[in-house]
Amino acid sequence: MSRFWSQRTRELDPYVPGEQPKDSQYIKLNTNENPYPPSAQVLQAIQQASNGDLRLYSDPNADELKQTIADYYAVEKNNVFVGNSSDEVLAHTFVALLKHDKPLLFPDISYSFYPVYCRLFGIDYQMIPLSEHFDIRLEDYAIPNGGIIFPNPNAPTGKALDLPTIEAFLQQHPDSVIVIDEAYVDFGADTAIALVKQYNNLLVTQTFSKSRSLAGLRVGFAVGDAELIAGLERVKNSFHPYALSREAIAGASASIKDTESFESNRQKIIKTRERITPLLEQLGFSVIPSSANFVFAKPPAGYTAEQLYQQLKQQNILVRYFNAPRIDEYLRITIGTDDEMDALLQTLRTIQT
Amino acid sequence: MSRFWSQRTRELDPYVPGEQPKDSQYIKLNTNENPYPPSAQVLQAIQQASNGDLRLYSDPNADELKQTIADYYAVEKNNVFVGNSSDEVLAHTFVALLKHDKPLLFPDISYSFYPVYCRLFGIDYQMIPLSEHFDIRLEDYAIPNGGIIFPNPNAPTGKALDLPTIEAFLQQHPDSVIVIDEAYVDFGADTAIALVKQYNNLLVTQTFSKSRSLAGLRVGFAVGDAELIAGLERVKNSFHPYALSREAIAGASASIKDTESFESNRQKIIKTRERITPLLEQLGFSVIPSSANFVFAKPPAGYTAEQLYQQLKQQNILVRYFNAPRIDEYLRITIGTDDEMDALLQTLRTIQT
Repeated sequence: MSRFWSQRTRELDPYVPGEQPKDSQYIKLNTNENPYPPSAQVLQAIQQASNGDLRLYSDPNADELKQTIADYYAVEKNNVFVGNSSDEVLAHTFVALLKHDKPLLFPDISYSFYPVYCRLFGIDYQMIPLSEHFDIRLEDYAIPNGGIIFPNPNAPTGKALDLPTIEAFLQQHPDSVIVIDEAYVDFGADTAIALVKQYNNLLVTQTFSKSRSLAGLRVGFAVGDAELIAGLERVKNSFHPYALSREAIAGASASIKDTESFESNRQKIIKTRERITPLLEQLGFSVIPSSANFVFAKPPAGYTAEQLYQQLKQQNILVRYFNAPRIDEYLRITIGTDDEMDALLQTLRTIQT
Repeated sequence: MSRFWSQRTRELDPYVPGEQPKDSQYIKLNTNENPYPPSAQVLQAIQQASNGDLRLYSDPNADELKQTIADYYAVEKNNVFVGNSSDEVLAHTFVALLKHDKPLLFPDISYSFYPVYCRLFGIDYQMIPLSEHFDIRLEDYAIPNGGIIFPNPNAPTGKALDLPTIEAFLQQHPDSVIVIDEAYVDFGADTAIALVKQYNNLLVTQTFSKSRSLAGLRVGFAVGDAELIAGLERVKNSFHPYALSREAIAGASASIKDTESFESNRQKIIKTRERITPLLEQLGFSVIPSSANFVFAKPPAGYTAEQLYQQLKQQNILVRYFNAPRIDEYLRITIGTDDEMDALLQTLRTIQT
């Protein structure tokens, strides 16, 4: 600690990302990356953007990318906000739309970055416990609030709400901003983007890091009512106007246009998830039905999640273990390729014998 | 304005970047971009990073880039912070190190983003007038403060302080963080990085956007005492842990290693600046001696800066005009190639006749 740190900085409890080992000895099932690379078209678009024009600033409005996303989701360009990762989009959202007098509400088991943003930006919050079976219950949110945010599907449970339930949330809270963090939506849930035209209090955030195989490019976006987006733009333009590089704009735009590899990869991942879920259950795991590119699984009796995480790591397989209340009996296992998942299953069998 | 905006968002007055026209009809001398492209080595490094591994997150610590910068400046890796543009590095700096009970001090004529950050983060500030001749005067800062920030060379004046004066600042304020924003330092001033080992209250920020021809890649960095850097890391890891893309880390690292084209380009720009300064004076401009890649010049009697900006724009030459107190009689003209500057001079002659 330094005497030069601001008071806020002293009080921070920064987010701790999953391990990112620099060597490639591991089967990496710990940070929900896509096992399939971006397509040749996407890589080519990025490479083509890496030319002499890099001496010039990128478009501060990223119009090409915004228009591409708008066309894809049948909204207008001014319904779209883009940023350097969905973490950044969420950070600006907390500042612009979720800091009010009443507390922000989010599930107790959820993306662990939400309370980190609240501390960074001085936002009062209240965590609403999931049900015993890890469900978000609409009725528990019927209390005074300055906004509501939750992932759909939720993380790290993988459980999704259906659109009628989302719409019920919106109708229950017409005076609160509702942010749906759809980082994992492409793996089995329905996006709420179709509702933004009807509900001016809805903001949907998404990322290119998971279903679009571009975690290393750092691009995220939000879709919502034009006035909500204008608030995000005000904050972004008070923070760094040129948020996205030329490569990021080009690569993300190409990715949205490349529907074929997007569809193919996400279907492969869904298929692998459905194949390995019963196989994990056969090994004694309790697996929560997942709509995401991971499963949240409780090891069989006789194994603690923490031990099993360590044992798998010794066998060069990385999964995610959260040392946190209510979820420390579970492992979050990213869906990799079929070969990677078979290697995981084989290793689990070895450990168990 | 939306009822869903936070109070802070309502009160923002976002930064307005220079025009970024999408067509290429203009000679663009308005946003201090480098007229020379990044080298083949740098472009190649970026293209090579655009491979299938983009499916994986980038290194959240950007160790490769930090180590490269540390080696170049003969400091340690933990003296280096990197971010998605120096605007972002500055934003985190304001939160981590410049928000204290006493007001932050900076010159009244300076990077116009500083008051924008203060409003975004709720930081009290006091602007200290430059002297009549646009000099930063050390003695004017001898008042209670929660930190001091200024660019060196200053923008948009182009005037630089020498290192003994910077050191006098540091000695005068041992209990305040002093941030030197060296966006333009490579064009004729001395970096204060050599002082970070002696002064634990010094933070130096730099960018890859100007002297390194990478405005479109979005990378900036800071060098300072390890405890100051640790404060920045806390804020960054509470905002977005994976700040830099794989392309940004690779390209910026290659750029630091490519000393030859860096030296060659900055010398060319300095030479062009020195050549055109007396030519502008011959046309009746008052030109402030510049240590940056731009000149701040007052048009001859009979021309207002605003009119001349408009007339040049009609002739497809963009320069920067600031409609702000004390500087609205000046134009900031980026140093382009020799051909571009000759075209500017020729156009000015046409306008004057």
